[in-house]
Amino acid sequence: MSSIRVGIIGASGYAGEELIRLLIRHPGIDLRVITSRQYKHRSLESVYPDIGSFRNIQFDDPDNLEKIDSQTDVVFLALPHGAGMHYAQFLYHRAKVVIDLSADFRLKDPSDYEIYYKFSHPFSDLLEEAVYALPEIYQDQIVQSRLLAMPGCYPTGVLLPVAPFLKKGWIDPSSIEIVALSGSTGAGKTLDSKLLFSELADNLRPYGFPGHRHTPEIEQQITKLAQNRCSRVLFLPILAPLRRGILLSIVASLTEEISQQDAEGLALHFYKEAPFVKILTGGIMPELRYVLGSNYLYFSTCVLADKKKLLLLSVIDNLGKGAAGQAIQVMNIKFGLDQTLGLIP
Amino acid sequence: MSSIRVGIIGASGYAGEELIRLLIRHPGIDLRVITSRQYKHRSLESVYPDIGSFRNIQFDDPDNLEKIDSQTDVVFLALPHGAGMHYAQFLYHRAKVVIDLSADFRLKDPSDYEIYYKFSHPFSDLLEEAVYALPEIYQDQIVQSRLLAMPGCYPTGVLLPVAPFLKKGWIDPSSIEIVALSGSTGAGKTLDSKLLFSELADNLRPYGFPGHRHTPEIEQQITKLAQNRCSRVLFLPILAPLRRGILLSIVASLTEEISQQDAEGLALHFYKEAPFVKILTGGIMPELRYVLGSNYLYFSTCVLADKKKLLLLSVIDNLGKGAAGQAIQVMNIKFGLDQTLGLIP
Amino acid sequence: MSSIRVGIIGASGYAGEELIRLLIRHPGIDLRVITSRQYKHRSLESVYPDIGSFRNIQFDDPDNLEKIDSQTDVVFLALPHGAGMHYAQFLYHRAKVVIDLSADFRLKDPSDYEIYYKFSHPFSDLLEEAVYALPEIYQDQIVQSRLLAMPGCYPTGVLLPVAPFLKKGWIDPSSIEIVALSGSTGAGKTLDSKLLFSELADNLRPYGFPGHRHTPEIEQQITKLAQNRCSRVLFLPILAPLRRGILLSIVASLTEEISQQDAEGLALHFYKEAPFVKILTGGIMPELRYVLGSNYLYFSTCVLADKKKLLLLSVIDNLGKGAAGQAIQVMNIKFGLDQTLGLIP
Amino acid sequence: MSSIRVGIIGASGYAGEELIRLLIRHPGIDLRVITSRQYKHRSLESVYPDIGSFRNIQFDDPDNLEKIDSQTDVVFLALPHGAGMHYAQFLYHRAKVVIDLSADFRLKDPSDYEIYYKFSHPFSDLLEEAVYALPEIYQDQIVQSRLLAMPGCYPTGVLLPVAPFLKKGWIDPSSIEIVALSGSTGAGKTLDSKLLFSELADNLRPYGFPGHRHTPEIEQQITKLAQNRCSRVLFLPILAPLRRGILLSIVASLTEEISQQDAEGLALHFYKEAPFVKILTGGIMPELRYVLGSNYLYFSTCVLADKKKLLLLSVIDNLGKGAAGQAIQVMNIKFGLDQTLGLIP
Repeated sequence: MSSIRVGIIGASGYAGEELIRLLIRHPGIDLRVITSRQYKHRSLESVYPDIGSFRNIQFDDPDNLEKIDSQTDVVFLALPHGAGMHYAQFLYHRAKVVIDLSADFRLKDPSDYEIYYKFSHPFSDLLEEAVYALPEIYQDQIVQSRLLAMPGCYPTGVLLPVAPFLKKGWIDPSSIEIVALSGSTGAGKTLDSKLLFSELADNLRPYGFPGHRHTPEIEQQITKLAQNRCSRVLFLPILAPLRRGILLSIVASLTEEISQQDAEGLALHFYKEAPFVKILTGGIMPELRYVLGSNYLYFSTCVLADKKKLLLLSVIDNLGKGAAGQAIQVMNIKFGLDQTLGLIP
Repeated sequence: MSSIRVGIIGASGYAGEELIRLLIRHPGIDLRVITSRQYKHRSLESVYPDIGSFRNIQFDDPDNLEKIDSQTDVVFLALPHGAGMHYAQFLYHRAKVVIDLSADFRLKDPSDYEIYYKFSHPFSDLLEEAVYALPEIYQDQIVQSRLLAMPGCYPTGVLLPVAPFLKKGWIDPSSIEIVALSGSTGAGKTLDSKLLFSELADNLRPYGFPGHRHTPEIEQQITKLAQNRCSRVLFLPILAPLRRGILLSIVASLTEEISQQDAEGLALHFYKEAPFVKILTGGIMPELRYVLGSNYLYFSTCVLADKKKLLLLSVIDNLGKGAAGQAIQVMNIKFGLDQTLGLIP
Repeated sequence: MSSIRVGIIGASGYAGEELIRLLIRHPGIDLRVITSRQYKHRSLESVYPDIGSFRNIQFDDPDNLEKIDSQTDVVFLALPHGAGMHYAQFLYHRAKVVIDLSADFRLKDPSDYEIYYKFSHPFSDLLEEAVYALPEIYQDQIVQSRLLAMPGCYPTGVLLPVAPFLKKGWIDPSSIEIVALSGSTGAGKTLDSKLLFSELADNLRPYGFPGHRHTPEIEQQITKLAQNRCSRVLFLPILAPLRRGILLSIVASLTEEISQQDAEGLALHFYKEAPFVKILTGGIMPELRYVLGSNYLYFSTCVLADKKKLLLLSVIDNLGKGAAGQAIQVMNIKFGLDQTLGLIP
Repeated sequence: MSSIRVGIIGASGYAGEELIRLLIRHPGIDLRVITSRQYKHRSLESVYPDIGSFRNIQFDDPDNLEKIDSQTDVVFLALPHGAGMHYAQFLYHRAKVVIDLSADFRLKDPSDYEIYYKFSHPFSDLLEEAVYALPEIYQDQIVQSRLLAMPGCYPTGVLLPVAPFLKKGWIDPSSIEIVALSGSTGAGKTLDSKLLFSELADNLRPYGFPGHRHTPEIEQQITKLAQNRCSRVLFLPILAPLRRGILLSIVASLTEEISQQDAEGLALHFYKEAPFVKILTGGIMPELRYVLGSNYLYFSTCVLADKKKLLLLSVIDNLGKGAAGQAIQVMNIKFGLDQTLGLIP
């Protein structure tokens, strides 16, 4: 089979950079176009000497739609929220596969965009066609759609651990409480004084509570996993002095008295064919370093002594399983490749 | 009034170092003795050039009990758990004021020491005389005792925010869930490979769950604040790549529908005369940097939208309000000084 | 004596914040005015909760010159280079003592401003009146001037260690090579993507070579210390993942064969009355942590085995001895106070 | 060709872990044996969940020499200095290729081991057979020997940049001054309180000066590159708050007036066929992040304005080009593979 021709629009942010890093070692694709308004006409190596050593390619102007159209089968959009919808629409109608890493097509209800993202969504028709591309849960739908909305980093870290328990009905969807610790790259390269080294080092900063933009996304998906029992979650994100990675503490009320063995058994069974989801057992809890640079999610389960609550602890790399890695996993699935291609050694 | 004569046994750990740092600028005391088995006969400056610049003093051998006895009115014990009990007994019977920063006299039930600290407590009589010296709550008892057991760092960060709500009966003591992020100095200078820079940097590591040693301490005190309604808490500590500081997320179920204004009002009123407890209002959440190097605790309150849960966020410096600072605050109270003496500019 | 009335213009940067932190515990002054265009009319506590706990004061508009004039005896300018010259001129002519932390009055040759700072200096008359206020070297001149140009952080860390050797003629002024490691606060709060946490963490970045703005300042002062033997230095600054502090490695050629004892003896004698300069002997080299938060400079001397070169290693806190602390030391000297007032416990 | 059978003795240190990480994605080898006294009989995944996800293998007892002998063609020794010599001798005489990452066979003069490593070298015959396996310089000798002494991390970072200039005679070998910044993994997993997170974070610490163990190694090699003109270097290492990576500043006196273009031209030409050495030109200086996780070395050259000195700045990952990566590069060369196999995407 000939290589899949790939483009990346918005290749100069952290997710875009990670996409390049991963795609240049992906054996089944051909990276044809990378765009960056800021770096257009510069070589990859002049911007990122490390990954540029491996691949001789130039940044294109993102307005060069003709080139993007003629050179690609699939396009990753790695743009700030709201900035890539027109590309999505254009490329979707040119029969491309569009894999959007932003939030622009994650939510189903257009009014949520007004509340949480402060814009009126111009393409509500596309919202309906878009699939929420969490690969371990929605593999079948990914195969059938060409507009793939990649989950946010926090939602990925929450939904995979809770999914088995929600689907089984063992936890109350309205009881979920999440404390999430995140590194700085999750916030992108935004020039915000709060993201300066001088402000984040030696610091921990809760933010976006209540009402972080990932809250409606998590709630929408939990509601769906719980067979439409409408849910509200407590979601508290905290910035930690780290570049990459997310660790999540998730507490939920149990609906019946299960044992620790039940919990582990369910999780292991649910993900027995998921190459990137690892269940820790025997009292081992995940550390962030388990996943840095990879597409893995590790989680542990703990039924508390009183059998009333379940504690789930999960870790992902926000740029890996939380963004670029997962997007490539989705591409692999969509194009019928082994889903791990290019993502493990 | 003549200066209070002060000794520190175990002055070479992080809490001991911080005690020296604070005491050398305390205008009401005279630091007479500092001991360290490791550094005995060395000058303070040769061990800690920074604080040693300010004060010419030598480390003594901790076995030099005669000197300690003859030179001090109050002795701080800053030793590992279990290592200072004999000093405490000796000094207590010599009519000294003993301020113990370890856990050796915090718990009331001797059997808890067997479960959580793996030793049989040899001085159960002293356990009864010891006061749990959380100054904002037990000021009266501090004045009346000479054996002052300083609260642990995590318990301090938990108990001060929850106290008003527990005493008022607005939260259910059996519902409390705590996620605590801590810097590395909380673990002391123990030579444990898990505390190496190479292991903690770029990492987040949950640990001591379930069953961290501060759990029974928190539960004992919550039970007491809740008028002996026996409580069990979920307490999850996580090591973050920081030297100092603790940030705590505390979630509890509300027992009645209170407003955000009620919550803030209660907290402000409860601590209106507490110089070191600061309530953040108006949606502001505490950052760790607010307290680094100080004896302050900041906390915010948030009644969730459904009025069923309360989220409290607090920050302290584990070596300040969580250890040395609070111990000095207690000394000030015990000796009738302004409790802020030496602790604010 | 009544308190000295103090103002700070530009109190919202890192140096300004440190000035406030130090001045609120200074027993000899009264902090009357702090200005910030960004934070005007806000309380100190709302911007810096930590130091705001200690002092109830509001940020003023820097344009409120009348208030500044009527309320102060001395004014610290903690503004970006080029932004404070008009304040300096105005206040100087109103008979205030002006202590400028920027580079605006450090260089004597106006043309250097055109080369290194890209502006034509509008007040060349004031350039002549300004004193380069390195207190250990120019104490007498500080007493006689009212326009005090505070040395840069790097120059302070270089000049104090080399001064004894230059004055004695033991090192060749044209041979000096400096490698300087600095934390991020040295670059201020500038919104530059290179200063984001995501860019500086896990990184080391040489910058500003050749031609860093502190180079002409160092060269001007070395030339002066070496009795006008014109000198050029190699000055390589490197950003390290730290918030505060500078460590400098300084290598110079010896002009005669001196012993290690000679070197230490000279340094100790030269600074025997300098309370903030500490000489490390016996092979001990300074670590950054020795000086964090303080106004001290530590340095070690090492005559290499071949007796041809001297290695000096020095550490300062860029916000302490490198900026705010030293500025207060200069104020103390200027107003006849003990130079350590407010700077040590 | 059938796969090369590989063993790693000492697979639980940082270099050993990195060897595993790299070797499991190397297409030309079969990792048969990994040993660790500490972890024997445990699965790789239980010790390193991240890399263990990719490969199902157990740690063996290093005393199981029979298995090592029967299962391998090449053995990497990743043991502390002095601990692996007997393995080297045994395996060398069993006709294995031995690639030793320790210092045990780097120095030619046995007496240097007594001075710098405090042991008397028991295998001085092997010292003669060992090749100093810096691949860009000694490729021919690597092919001819079976005992390959991998260069230290600092020497690698120094020798590659200086080699072209020494060989050409453009710099004076006796003038070289090196300031080296290193992350903590360079010091291994030694349980030393100076390597605790609490001691290294927010700190910079010069160490091992004069007389760091890499000094004689650097001097031996510089002497050789300079056609036996005996050289002494100034080598100052500094620990920085980083896990990985080394940045080196190298200053040397020029022996003739060369231009910047000459310097860049020489370096580019010298390394035109070296896939892992990258020359930065046009005033760009290397940042540490360019090389983290890779086997690259980047360096820049700068002829100072007076044409008397040359400044070289280089960066490597101490675990990559400074240890495991380079060892694999050497294995590739030794076994006739493309030297980049398994080291670039």
